Amino acid sequence: MIIQPNSKLLMIGDSITDCGRARPVGDMWPKGALGDGYVGFVAALLDARYPAHNFRVFNMGINGNTVMDLKARWQTDVLDLKPDWLSICIGINDVWLQFARPQMTEKHIRLDVYTRILDELVTETKPMLRGLILMSPYYIEPNRSEPVRAIMDTYGTAVRQIAEKHQAIFVDTQAVFDALLTQTHSSAFAWDRVHSNQAGHMALVRAFLQSVGYEWE
Amino acid sequence: MIIQPNSKLLMIGDSITDCGRARPVGDMWPKGALGDGYVGFVAALLDARYPAHNFRVFNMGINGNTVMDLKARWQTDVLDLKPDWLSICIGINDVWLQFARPQMTEKHIRLDVYTRILDELVTETKPMLRGLILMSPYYIEPNRSEPVRAIMDTYGTAVRQIAEKHQAIFVDTQAVFDALLTQTHSSAFAWDRVHSNQAGHMALVRAFLQSVGYEWE
Amino acid sequence: MIIQPNSKLLMIGDSITDCGRARPVGDMWPKGALGDGYVGFVAALLDARYPAHNFRVFNMGINGNTVMDLKARWQTDVLDLKPDWLSICIGINDVWLQFARPQMTEKHIRLDVYTRILDELVTETKPMLRGLILMSPYYIEPNRSEPVRAIMDTYGTAVRQIAEKHQAIFVDTQAVFDALLTQTHSSAFAWDRVHSNQAGHMALVRAFLQSVGYEWE
Amino acid sequence: MIIQPNSKLLMIGDSITDCGRARPVGDMWPKGALGDGYVGFVAALLDARYPAHNFRVFNMGINGNTVMDLKARWQTDVLDLKPDWLSICIGINDVWLQFARPQMTEKHIRLDVYTRILDELVTETKPMLRGLILMSPYYIEPNRSEPVRAIMDTYGTAVRQIAEKHQAIFVDTQAVFDALLTQTHSSAFAWDRVHSNQAGHMALVRAFLQSVGYEWE
Amino acid sequence: MIIQPNSKLLMIGDSITDCGRARPVGDMWPKGALGDGYVGFVAALLDARYPAHNFRVFNMGINGNTVMDLKARWQTDVLDLKPDWLSICIGINDVWLQFARPQMTEKHIRLDVYTRILDELVTETKPMLRGLILMSPYYIEPNRSEPVRAIMDTYGTAVRQIAEKHQAIFVDTQAVFDALLTQTHSSAFAWDRVHSNQAGHMALVRAFLQSVGYEWE
Amino acid sequence: MIIQPNSKLLMIGDSITDCGRARPVGDMWPKGALGDGYVGFVAALLDARYPAHNFRVFNMGINGNTVMDLKARWQTDVLDLKPDWLSICIGINDVWLQFARPQMTEKHIRLDVYTRILDELVTETKPMLRGLILMSPYYIEPNRSEPVRAIMDTYGTAVRQIAEKHQAIFVDTQAVFDALLTQTHSSAFAWDRVHSNQAGHMALVRAFLQSVGYEWE
Amino acid sequence: MIIQPNSKLLMIGDSITDCGRARPVGDMWPKGALGDGYVGFVAALLDARYPAHNFRVFNMGINGNTVMDLKARWQTDVLDLKPDWLSICIGINDVWLQFARPQMTEKHIRLDVYTRILDELVTETKPMLRGLILMSPYYIEPNRSEPVRAIMDTYGTAVRQIAEKHQAIFVDTQAVFDALLTQTHSSAFAWDRVHSNQAGHMALVRAFLQSVGYEWE
Amino acid sequence: MIIQPNSKLLMIGDSITDCGRARPVGDMWPKGALGDGYVGFVAALLDARYPAHNFRVFNMGINGNTVMDLKARWQTDVLDLKPDWLSICIGINDVWLQFARPQMTEKHIRLDVYTRILDELVTETKPMLRGLILMSPYYIEPNRSEPVRAIMDTYGTAVRQIAEKHQAIFVDTQAVFDALLTQTHSSAFAWDRVHSNQAGHMALVRAFLQSVGYEWE
Repeated sequence: MIIQPNSKLLMIGDSITDCGRARPVGDMWPKGALGDGYVGFVAALLDARYPAHNFRVFNMGINGNTVMDLKARWQTDVLDLKPDWLSICIGINDVWLQFARPQMTEKHIRLDVYTRILDELVTETKPMLRGLILMSPYYIEPNRSEPVRAIMDTYGTAVRQIAEKHQAIFVDTQAVFDALLTQTHSSAFAWDRVHSNQAGHMALVRAFLQSVGYEWE
Repeated sequence: MIIQPNSKLLMIGDSITDCGRARPVGDMWPKGALGDGYVGFVAALLDARYPAHNFRVFNMGINGNTVMDLKARWQTDVLDLKPDWLSICIGINDVWLQFARPQMTEKHIRLDVYTRILDELVTETKPMLRGLILMSPYYIEPNRSEPVRAIMDTYGTAVRQIAEKHQAIFVDTQAVFDALLTQTHSSAFAWDRVHSNQAGHMALVRAFLQSVGYEWE
Repeated sequence: MIIQPNSKLLMIGDSITDCGRARPVGDMWPKGALGDGYVGFVAALLDARYPAHNFRVFNMGINGNTVMDLKARWQTDVLDLKPDWLSICIGINDVWLQFARPQMTEKHIRLDVYTRILDELVTETKPMLRGLILMSPYYIEPNRSEPVRAIMDTYGTAVRQIAEKHQAIFVDTQAVFDALLTQTHSSAFAWDRVHSNQAGHMALVRAFLQSVGYEWE
Repeated sequence: MIIQPNSKLLMIGDSITDCGRARPVGDMWPKGALGDGYVGFVAALLDARYPAHNFRVFNMGINGNTVMDLKARWQTDVLDLKPDWLSICIGINDVWLQFARPQMTEKHIRLDVYTRILDELVTETKPMLRGLILMSPYYIEPNRSEPVRAIMDTYGTAVRQIAEKHQAIFVDTQAVFDALLTQTHSSAFAWDRVHSNQAGHMALVRAFLQSVGYEWE
Repeated sequence: MIIQPNSKLLMIGDSITDCGRARPVGDMWPKGALGDGYVGFVAALLDARYPAHNFRVFNMGINGNTVMDLKARWQTDVLDLKPDWLSICIGINDVWLQFARPQMTEKHIRLDVYTRILDELVTETKPMLRGLILMSPYYIEPNRSEPVRAIMDTYGTAVRQIAEKHQAIFVDTQAVFDALLTQTHSSAFAWDRVHSNQAGHMALVRAFLQSVGYEWE
Repeated sequence: MIIQPNSKLLMIGDSITDCGRARPVGDMWPKGALGDGYVGFVAALLDARYPAHNFRVFNMGINGNTVMDLKARWQTDVLDLKPDWLSICIGINDVWLQFARPQMTEKHIRLDVYTRILDELVTETKPMLRGLILMSPYYIEPNRSEPVRAIMDTYGTAVRQIAEKHQAIFVDTQAVFDALLTQTHSSAFAWDRVHSNQAGHMALVRAFLQSVGYEWE
Repeated sequence: MIIQPNSKLLMIGDSITDCGRARPVGDMWPKGALGDGYVGFVAALLDARYPAHNFRVFNMGINGNTVMDLKARWQTDVLDLKPDWLSICIGINDVWLQFARPQMTEKHIRLDVYTRILDELVTETKPMLRGLILMSPYYIEPNRSEPVRAIMDTYGTAVRQIAEKHQAIFVDTQAVFDALLTQTHSSAFAWDRVHSNQAGHMALVRAFLQSVGYEWE
Repeated sequence: MIIQPNSKLLMIGDSITDCGRARPVGDMWPKGALGDGYVGFVAALLDARYPAHNFRVFNMGINGNTVMDLKARWQTDVLDLKPDWLSICIGINDVWLQFARPQMTEKHIRLDVYTRILDELVTETKPMLRGLILMSPYYIEPNRSEPVRAIMDTYGTAVRQIAEKHQAIFVDTQAVFDALLTQTHSSAFAWDRVHSNQAGHMALVRAFLQSVGYEWE
């Protein structure tokens, strides 16, 4: 497993990441402060498997955030906490709000802006990190021509390209859900094709941990 | 993985199992009804890995229960739900209350009674099951001569023997925590040497799933 | 408008109908007892347009109900209240749970059972009514080959056929949403393709009222 | 319908407008943020009828406000939000408090002051709007010589005159309720002759929407 | 003052009487059990003026009651408590609901029924009492041709006649409010012309106490 | 009655005055803002008897206050509100805390300090008032040699002397309770000899209103 | 200390005993189930001093109880729990309500009735006990001619005589408070001369424990 | 007893001290402000035994504090309150967090730092005190080679040495619990070997009071 003992791992994103984490910082104390989504499960599985490694995990997700919101709080919520490893999972709201709230145009982050901002954040932060993990946004819908899915895929491609450009680890969350959707309907995992139940989060956890060398079939 | 598709898996026990599950039955609906302990994680990981297998998981744990309490509610809480697979994790309160509430003698279940009752429940139920999993009680304390640990080990041995007698699967939860305790102090997992954090629950999950052939290093 | 002055209109169904109505009976008192969905809006628009007609509206929807649940409470929740007009909007859970909770098979109401039970309820009740309105179930998804939509359409067809057989009024709610979906994405109306916002409910209201001769462009 | 696609419609007023809207801004998100009075219904009906028009509706009503209170928050609550269309419904408290709290003279806004302030607000704001709708205050009392009604009518006349002077749309809410009162008693709509139930709000909605060309018999 | 020392005074009625009294019996203990309306004030003034007389006051009002509701609970709520003195204040809902909920005809108590039931209750109970006080219903509206007021006056007349027939004390509550309305608008006392503020209750208290010989200018 | 129409009456004091009044100002709106003690009853009785006089009553009592606390908030809580009439009821805590919290010496206001501060407040404020009412502190204990009562009487005497010096109205609240105590035990009025029930407050109300010429036997 | 190891000590009484204990039985689990008055302190001090003695303490006090209330629940609340030791502290309400609620005569337990009932309970129960402790009622008032105190003393004498007759241990709680009152005012211990603060409870604890041979200066 | 009459005793520490005390200052008012741990019991026992001594006790404990946290709030929470006597009970978190949260290194206070800071606080404060009491940290575990216990003992030794150096009173809390542990298991006193029940607190109270000459066997 490539995350070094005693590392600080900061995970930032939107509601997929947030999941009820503590404010202002989702830290390892008190119980439940990391939320009940993939972040808490990642931390628990790391501790269960590597109990002597003393990982410090921070959950800094905020419901409804776009990449523009991440940028606005990057100093206090990322840089000031001096992480060794950083994961970013952003973009779902950037796309989804274009469809769900077409009149709230100030919240629509078009692909070029999304790409530029995310690249800037990565460029600024990568040098001070031991490791960077970029997670694609996703839409739990198997039909690639469905409008939200079609646009979401272009954002996912942008994340993959930024990861390649900066030699970051890329976690293809869309592929995780696509695999599940070959066997079951999206509603078994997520009421709304976005916010999955614990099973969906566990699928994200497996992909995340595999990406850092935690061996799991 | 040996649990058959479309199986009903019922998991019963004390507070380690309960973890805030819904009443009167902890079922797969609504969200959170399986609690936030090992039961919910087992269900989520099974669904994430075998999404087409349609497992039905019931959490029937109740805080503070001894094996005598299980017996009292066995008909409604186990038999009436007609599980295909059953897991039992009981005994911690049977032992712990002998030390923590020495004057509440009506709650002390001595080893012979514990063994007899558990054996009766297994004998009665095994014929109608496809699979049975017996989990030992545990005490998150590395010193085997510590009084609670010493007694708990005798109860764990009893569970192992009942499992062997009935050819049930045995999950040695004490061994799970003993492995962790070689690397870290009990207080990193459990404030009180009994109720562990999510990391401890994940360690239980791994042992549980490995016991039914879910491959996980 | 064909609903006679002083009529009692009872509207029954699932969560689309319920919308927080009062228990045990959603009546015209106190404020809010009819819920904040299409039922309350229908009652309010009828009163606003025909203030001297003294309509009595009952909301008897219950979240999560299938047609089997309606049958179980038909005596107390419909017959005992002696409605003059009755509307039924049921079937979404009958279909949706087949996809969202594949393991909860006791809640899956297959098409033949659905058709039979609904027909029985209509057959039993029609003679004592002045008017009967059958509303189709719907799925707010434009792709007719999407699995839930595809099955839902067969249930909608069954409702239409039962309406025709019994000369009941038929409200094609799926057509209402299909018209909206030609112009906007489902997420602008409903987070989960089922529970719409007030705009979706207003579209239902218009279709419902038009079906009883309330003139509205 | 004369409100242009993609318009922002801001609706300001007192408790008739407020109806539990979100603070600090009643926007289109989250659910319920526009309150459960005429504003939310107007927004829902516009969306249901013109789903591709992407209207943005803001509810900026505050319980108990007089025109003097509107003036005090005009910059932040109207101008800063840059509406394309604006509706104002104010005056009920300006009159009512003269009768209900005769000793709270600082809250009594006499007709000349009311007229002057409202005219100033309209004069200042009209140039930056695509459309302006002035709604009269009302008292749900059919007897025109009843003291509150008699005074309220003079304020309604002032609103009509300001609308004419500035070529704004005028909605005669008093006429809306007068029509209802020919057929039923005020208590069927409003406990207190001011705060009507959903039926009264729907009557306001119809008048409002008709005034902007939404065709509705 | 004609109420004898050590008397039990039971006061029954609708929301005017209830005012938040304790359930199932509004007794003299705990603090606040008599509610914050005229009943509590009567009890307090009696105790303040006649501290050695040991009056026992019961508040048995229930919101929304008509005379039919009183009849249904007369055994448990009046007879079983064995009062020495009894006051009845009923009729407002009997009338008001005819206007406010015209479709809820089962709650409309027409004058003949009202008169008959009230007379029956008085006939049954008078022999076991030391004193009986009948309070008229009222509507805080000065215009005697207003529809609710006009009907309410006929009920008030019925109460007066029953009082005369049975030689009971009559409290003309309508006259109490009529006197106030010569000097101020109804909205200064009651938002809805029924539920008055503390000032209105104090006016009732004065009339009530004067009727039993408590001297008060 | 000597309080002039349209007067503002501000009543200040400790918990006897406070009784749950609204913050920051106990005004005539909303319902209950004057608390449920003697202040609210005075306001209600004044309105009931003189409905056209438009009295404005402010309750500015604060639980636990001593005269030193009044001094600290005199500008904002009295002078800024520009009362026409002022009543002060202070001193119970000044005395009581000397006995109940002997170690909290910073809260003990000795007689000389009490007298000086109260005199200063009166001297400063009297010129801007139409009327001033000084209410003595009291202890609901008939035995004048009881230690708290004995000291309280000296504070009451100080209030009387200040009233005489400044020609203010004096309300002898101790005499009010002494009269009651000739007929009943203190526990019938006040659990703790300080905080009386509504009957005790009504006795205060009568004394207060009689002092300003409200005729009441 | 004369309470034998492994004894069950049941303590019954009124609000002095209750102090927020758990329902239906105040047992040693969960934390706080014994309330925060003298019962909990007695149990804690016994455990702290005799940790190996495994005392079981039950708190069965109920607020407001008189000896008549104890009698009504004696079977379920005392006999069924099979105590080895029993303490009874009753009588304060029997006396106090005669003064505080003179009109609630059904709650007044006169001395002869009090004595007879308490004697009956003791007679019935003594044979099955290892030890019985009778605590006198008290009134925290130093003046023995004060009316409540004077009557309370007669009840205390009755308890002493019953204790002597049955050779039970007698705890003179009135003497405990009399000793304190020689040095400080009652208000330093008890707002209302009945419900003392923790200091008063500790004084009761010391007297109670001394009575059973727990040595404490 | 060596604490002088009229002394202020300030007790500071971590969660053992805090126990729900009031914020910002745990003072003698209102009821419960001193928390329900050893501080409140000490204050109550002092008052019960020395009612005329007028002790003032402050509880300034804060959950989770280390000696570094005490230092940060020493000015406001100790010096500004001008105590005559001071007790300090700190160190449990300084040690425990090294084991329970190995990755939160910023909260680990090593022995040398602990000793230095505590010595500085004592050096600074001792001159202004009449008496100083240093309480050792403890771990309710009888096995002296258990890792937390072993380290905790070194901190306890440091406290003893600082006490000797400054001639402060030393309370050996570890010895208090060691005595209990010879007779019963730690779980009978403390779920987690740190936070004891009332019995454990009473044992602390006895040791504390004995250290200041309160005679208690």
